[in-house]
Amino acid sequence: MSDEDEIRAELLGANERFYAAFAGGDLRSMSALWAAHDRLACTHPGRPPSIGRARVLSGWFDILQNPPPVRCIAPVPMIIGAAGMVLCLEQVGQYHLAATNVFEREGRHWRMVHHHAGPVEFAPDPAPEGHSGQVH
Amino acid sequence: MSDEDEIRAELLGANERFYAAFAGGDLRSMSALWAAHDRLACTHPGRPPSIGRARVLSGWFDILQNPPPVRCIAPVPMIIGAAGMVLCLEQVGQYHLAATNVFEREGRHWRMVHHHAGPVEFAPDPAPEGHSGQVH
Repeated sequence: MSDEDEIRAELLGANERFYAAFAGGDLRSMSALWAAHDRLACTHPGRPPSIGRARVLSGWFDILQNPPPVRCIAPVPMIIGAAGMVLCLEQVGQYHLAATNVFEREGRHWRMVHHHAGPVEFAPDPAPEGHSGQVH
Repeated sequence: MSDEDEIRAELLGANERFYAAFAGGDLRSMSALWAAHDRLACTHPGRPPSIGRARVLSGWFDILQNPPPVRCIAPVPMIIGAAGMVLCLEQVGQYHLAATNVFEREGRHWRMVHHHAGPVEFAPDPAPEGHSGQVH
């Protein structure tokens, strides 16, 4: 595995841990996943952006009291220097959302700095547009 | 102005140019704003992510045929190494959307690599949550 493949795999691993914490209602893991500084943001469906660590984690505290059975589908990783994004769909029962998850690389770890999710108006195909494979 | 302030101002300038091209239906400017490579993504309201330059610009080609009177409100810039994000609200008539705009630094220029927008279910206050000022 090349360094680049490894970095991309680590990015996808961080994204998986995010959804495990989300679906599992695990606030401790969720808090550890996010970067320790204050330059964090989160845009939940139908809401304006929340900015700063306290607001972001307070939002997650509310959501994780009663976590939805969320599942990540077709994640596509993109590396931009020390930043990484994962574009994916989220399935919650019969509903789908489109998500943007942004991470920052700290040593060998990817820490989350932004999550944005919004509803998708139709059930996507099993191989939705643009999710056919890795981006080169 | 410190280097950091200047870089942040340039990021906000790129974000402004994005909205000028968007509202002005200017496909040539829109195309030039996006990075030249293929690691681009765009998540329009209600849609799954589009991945790759051709798909992203094809989506803009459709939208810019009949551009909405979109206006960017309360942009908050965040720098992550060579990447930069702007979180903002978009106002289109009486509707609001929340947007995540991600840019990549190329020399002195910020080039767009991702745009994600989704509807906000209520009209935000003039000083919406988390938009009270700059992030430190």
